[in-house]
Amino acid sequence: MKLEEMTSEEFSNFVDSLAVVILPIGAVEGHGWHLPLNTDTVQPEKVAREVEEILEADNYKVLIAPTLNYGNCRTTANFPGTISITPDSLRSVVRDILTEFMRHGLKNIVVLSGHAGSNHMAALRMAAGEALKTGNAKIMVLSDYDIAYKHLGEEVPKDDGHGGMLETSRVMAIRPDLVKLERSQGESHPELPPYRILKNPERYFTKGYRGYPDRASEELGRKMNQMIAEELAKLIEDMIEETVL
Amino acid sequence: MKLEEMTSEEFSNFVDSLAVVILPIGAVEGHGWHLPLNTDTVQPEKVAREVEEILEADNYKVLIAPTLNYGNCRTTANFPGTISITPDSLRSVVRDILTEFMRHGLKNIVVLSGHAGSNHMAALRMAAGEALKTGNAKIMVLSDYDIAYKHLGEEVPKDDGHGGMLETSRVMAIRPDLVKLERSQGESHPELPPYRILKNPERYFTKGYRGYPDRASEELGRKMNQMIAEELAKLIEDMIEETVL
Amino acid sequence: MKLEEMTSEEFSNFVDSLAVVILPIGAVEGHGWHLPLNTDTVQPEKVAREVEEILEADNYKVLIAPTLNYGNCRTTANFPGTISITPDSLRSVVRDILTEFMRHGLKNIVVLSGHAGSNHMAALRMAAGEALKTGNAKIMVLSDYDIAYKHLGEEVPKDDGHGGMLETSRVMAIRPDLVKLERSQGESHPELPPYRILKNPERYFTKGYRGYPDRASEELGRKMNQMIAEELAKLIEDMIEETVL
Amino acid sequence: MKLEEMTSEEFSNFVDSLAVVILPIGAVEGHGWHLPLNTDTVQPEKVAREVEEILEADNYKVLIAPTLNYGNCRTTANFPGTISITPDSLRSVVRDILTEFMRHGLKNIVVLSGHAGSNHMAALRMAAGEALKTGNAKIMVLSDYDIAYKHLGEEVPKDDGHGGMLETSRVMAIRPDLVKLERSQGESHPELPPYRILKNPERYFTKGYRGYPDRASEELGRKMNQMIAEELAKLIEDMIEETVL
Amino acid sequence: MKLEEMTSEEFSNFVDSLAVVILPIGAVEGHGWHLPLNTDTVQPEKVAREVEEILEADNYKVLIAPTLNYGNCRTTANFPGTISITPDSLRSVVRDILTEFMRHGLKNIVVLSGHAGSNHMAALRMAAGEALKTGNAKIMVLSDYDIAYKHLGEEVPKDDGHGGMLETSRVMAIRPDLVKLERSQGESHPELPPYRILKNPERYFTKGYRGYPDRASEELGRKMNQMIAEELAKLIEDMIEETVL
Amino acid sequence: MKLEEMTSEEFSNFVDSLAVVILPIGAVEGHGWHLPLNTDTVQPEKVAREVEEILEADNYKVLIAPTLNYGNCRTTANFPGTISITPDSLRSVVRDILTEFMRHGLKNIVVLSGHAGSNHMAALRMAAGEALKTGNAKIMVLSDYDIAYKHLGEEVPKDDGHGGMLETSRVMAIRPDLVKLERSQGESHPELPPYRILKNPERYFTKGYRGYPDRASEELGRKMNQMIAEELAKLIEDMIEETVL
Repeated sequence: MKLEEMTSEEFSNFVDSLAVVILPIGAVEGHGWHLPLNTDTVQPEKVAREVEEILEADNYKVLIAPTLNYGNCRTTANFPGTISITPDSLRSVVRDILTEFMRHGLKNIVVLSGHAGSNHMAALRMAAGEALKTGNAKIMVLSDYDIAYKHLGEEVPKDDGHGGMLETSRVMAIRPDLVKLERSQGESHPELPPYRILKNPERYFTKGYRGYPDRASEELGRKMNQMIAEELAKLIEDMIEETVL
Repeated sequence: MKLEEMTSEEFSNFVDSLAVVILPIGAVEGHGWHLPLNTDTVQPEKVAREVEEILEADNYKVLIAPTLNYGNCRTTANFPGTISITPDSLRSVVRDILTEFMRHGLKNIVVLSGHAGSNHMAALRMAAGEALKTGNAKIMVLSDYDIAYKHLGEEVPKDDGHGGMLETSRVMAIRPDLVKLERSQGESHPELPPYRILKNPERYFTKGYRGYPDRASEELGRKMNQMIAEELAKLIEDMIEETVL
Repeated sequence: MKLEEMTSEEFSNFVDSLAVVILPIGAVEGHGWHLPLNTDTVQPEKVAREVEEILEADNYKVLIAPTLNYGNCRTTANFPGTISITPDSLRSVVRDILTEFMRHGLKNIVVLSGHAGSNHMAALRMAAGEALKTGNAKIMVLSDYDIAYKHLGEEVPKDDGHGGMLETSRVMAIRPDLVKLERSQGESHPELPPYRILKNPERYFTKGYRGYPDRASEELGRKMNQMIAEELAKLIEDMIEETVL
Repeated sequence: MKLEEMTSEEFSNFVDSLAVVILPIGAVEGHGWHLPLNTDTVQPEKVAREVEEILEADNYKVLIAPTLNYGNCRTTANFPGTISITPDSLRSVVRDILTEFMRHGLKNIVVLSGHAGSNHMAALRMAAGEALKTGNAKIMVLSDYDIAYKHLGEEVPKDDGHGGMLETSRVMAIRPDLVKLERSQGESHPELPPYRILKNPERYFTKGYRGYPDRASEELGRKMNQMIAEELAKLIEDMIEETVL
Repeated sequence: MKLEEMTSEEFSNFVDSLAVVILPIGAVEGHGWHLPLNTDTVQPEKVAREVEEILEADNYKVLIAPTLNYGNCRTTANFPGTISITPDSLRSVVRDILTEFMRHGLKNIVVLSGHAGSNHMAALRMAAGEALKTGNAKIMVLSDYDIAYKHLGEEVPKDDGHGGMLETSRVMAIRPDLVKLERSQGESHPELPPYRILKNPERYFTKGYRGYPDRASEELGRKMNQMIAEELAKLIEDMIEETVL
Repeated sequence: MKLEEMTSEEFSNFVDSLAVVILPIGAVEGHGWHLPLNTDTVQPEKVAREVEEILEADNYKVLIAPTLNYGNCRTTANFPGTISITPDSLRSVVRDILTEFMRHGLKNIVVLSGHAGSNHMAALRMAAGEALKTGNAKIMVLSDYDIAYKHLGEEVPKDDGHGGMLETSRVMAIRPDLVKLERSQGESHPELPPYRILKNPERYFTKGYRGYPDRASEELGRKMNQMIAEELAKLIEDMIEETVL
């Protein structure tokens, strides 16, 4: 169920039987010339809806909170259209939201981010750690790409990445109208100098993506979205069933 | 146009001819038993779309940024389902977004909030003030209720307020499926002790709304939404045409 | 009684029978060429003394804390002589003071500001909200202009404002020696563009005041000061008598 | 001249010929049972007025800013009536005030504190250091006790201190009506364990003062106040005449 | 050369010919019963010295800054002896140090951490990002384990980790006197529930390490330390030779 | 014993019988041309080791924590090689460390700084004050120069100071290899204008030290180091034996 569409009364009636709440975290981030700025928003929203379906089939009630539409983007910060909030801002707002969930008695919480930048993810983890100081709950923080990238080397080449074959396929399966595959510029294998913090990372990353968007297909996207949802649903069920806090 | 649905390239091509960007600010807030938690989200989103229509008819290009779905709720903080972020978190994330707009060269910016709480609005104004330290732009910060409440005393009684006749009507005109008018509990005239900062404001505000939801009508809502959009469109056109920064 | 003039021992003896403490908040802010920079300081100090008189006549013991002489000024920030502290600094220092009042067991607290800027007032309310996290007390936060402006449209025109007929009259009744009425420049009806956050608001506000200082009179000032004190005294007595926290 | 009593216009006319601005910093702090809580406020205010007299006689124009009436009190924090703000709050508000002085073009600034606690003074120094990042000015930060204590061992015993013979004398010379010498409890030589940060320092400091209040005299106070003013006036004239920033 | 052992004059003479400065970041963190708390300190210090040797042989002058001996430990926070500083504290102090390096004109900077926790590393990266706002330099931020773990699956099993075969071997090669191999408790394969932020992670991590310390050897440690130093020296030489900032 | 060289198990076994933990605070700071940048690090480390010896002889178990190698330097900030962290960064990291000591049950804590700058020391005291809000412990915060300077006027002239006869002697007794006495430039009596916060203090402090390094001797250094250790050991034993918190 969508938290935002409930009334106070409906929430109040529902909260005790609730199994888990999912907070999708999106981003407004350049992904080459072929993918929309909300690429990292539509993916976790789609996964959340599919996870809800699977869990509800197993008789777990799921609440989906409104998406936080902004995230922190480090290496793509200077591309047209990227709107990056600082890790501190991200951390603050997510800490507040998780703290509110806990105040309302929610016991199982999933923070599901479409964007997987390391500082962005660290901000989310720190937010969860800070919320946990106000009480206790079982909190999971992950990107759907934490799961997706475990499958690289199967159908998708190992060096595919941001805006590549896998991500393009997934968006094609969700919002095909937003994908401009004809504007893709073929393979791209940017080699950012390793371990560097760069003022102008886009100099090393000229096409704004990494990998093989030209090999993308809606079918692969559907399959991956489904697989991610199933693996995540399993992880969440395990968390719900865990009795230790 | 929706910022989030553009690619980097489309944004890049579009930005120079852009007249104004609108950032809708929502909230997850209890509004009695008859209105959904996203009441303060659907209203500014609707107004933004109607403003876009009016402005585009006048040949101004409009960009609508992804809604920030969370806000700061003070007097309703303790109602079921309210998810309030602190004024500081709100300020930080909005400051970052506005700063990014300015970095991309956007010159006319409207922050349009559905929620009108005084600390919430102060946070938005402070965010704009801080962003202005990084450059210059014309920034407007308002709630659609700043406009709407100027019309109290006409069709809507002067003491109608949060979740009352006017707000219920407006939501009925936008998302009638989310309004549970049958769960409304009639007139409500809570008298919060004036000028007080209260730990438990809900004690004085027992129904969670103020005014006359029972007198609401979809027709009134449509009329008000239209009127707000027109007045706001006029204000924005004036801002665009102003030459001083 | 003045808190600052007591010894530790006197405070200690007095604190249990105390009904209310008033913290006046001033400002150093340009008010045209005819009013002194401490216009917003002398007014709440005067009101506090008159409120004390009224309450003591009703057998309530009143403590007046030392005035905080600095506030946050947004639209007048660039006028000669304005010394504005940030909303964050204001909030921090007021939060600390209120927290200390609560630590000493004071149960009824009034924060009375002469300046009524919206961010300034938001800072004071946030300070109170934060102090309330350390315990409980009944706290009122207001500007004397919250009361005064309810009477606009009676003797004073509705569009009178900052440094206008009403404010000039009030200062004339308190510190006539500081009013240079001959330097006033007649009516002034600045129209700041609505809802705007401006880098240089003084461009739209050229005389530094709004309204009709030329129509000011000491008599009107005395009457208004008295009326404000009486209305505020009534509000405070209601707060003291309230038993819920 | 008092900054607060000027109009914007008077400040504007005066600022170019101004030699120095003095910002007095007070405190609300327990000083035994014989001295008022504003002991540390009346002293720097008195010194500032006397310094002004001396400097104006030497043809230097002096501006006295409104006193900041609150300071940070560490070892006396738990005494009745002490209202201590944190070092961070103190630093923020003083940084803002100094930054504003510099924005208005004031080139010689003296921060004169009555209270001399080490964290309190550090906060003032840090505030000055931060303000200096926004421009340049000659800033002096001191307590009048930095000067006064250099004279211990002359008429006043070397181990006299907070609320002792020297301080009591000085307050007697300024506000004799506030001194309750009869409530003094004789000599007091608290030995706080050296270099300790204590949660409850008042356990070791039972009378709330240190030294010989019983030996205080108004005459000594007058003499000390005069001497401090003269030494400080000399330091300020040296600073004004210095040409390096 | 060690920065700390130079005089001001020596530093001043040396700084222009300097190729790179290395800042080792340590930790005080429980590593099972067999490794010392400074395990994550001695490793990067050793690597830094070996890198220096290699680089100096290639005629690059190297400066080694004093080690920051404290880091942020999340999953081991509750083990005896762990002294964890928050990510914010770590970030602040490292940001200050890097900013100072840049102020002194150092152009190539390596932050080398022994600890590899994700929030710890994020704090270091954020520190570098913030320092870069004050100017420009080439900054590399890594853990020696970023290099070491790329070799898992060769001599060391893939699931070896914190305090395991690899780390134990490395410390044996550096400070054999501090390794109490006899107190190791054999294989340990803690399975922390994936993606979870845990209040009490040690519940799932009962031996305080992960992997095969019993298979450790000084010889393997020496080999790994050497290999890491060589790979890192290569990366640093590439960075030094790069001409773009 | 050195905290850093213990294993988790050893720490765990040791902690109950522990009498006191010492945290040495160093600095990287220019001290003329004759002393190394780690002058303020080697001194408290030496004192800590000697204090440990004395206390252990009296059957008190001592833990020495890893040195924090960076401090805040105000007046020497602009000299070659000075790496100064802000007072806020210093405070944060030390607060975290002390809080961790308290979490582990350590009851007597000494923060021993080689550097004695007033803002630096204030940061350490504030850190201790903040840590004390999380529980209770006996905490001492001092510089070894708080003790050393009490002996000025005996063998060492009263106006000797930073990098002078006393400090040079002490470093000669600890690390004679790092002292370049031949690079000293004779007597230096910089007169910083009193009470001033200076943007460029080095203008008034041209040699980077104050006093008589040429009169330094290793013998005097040994004697002073010993005396400081003995006085400090006595203070610590008194603290340990104190029963009040």
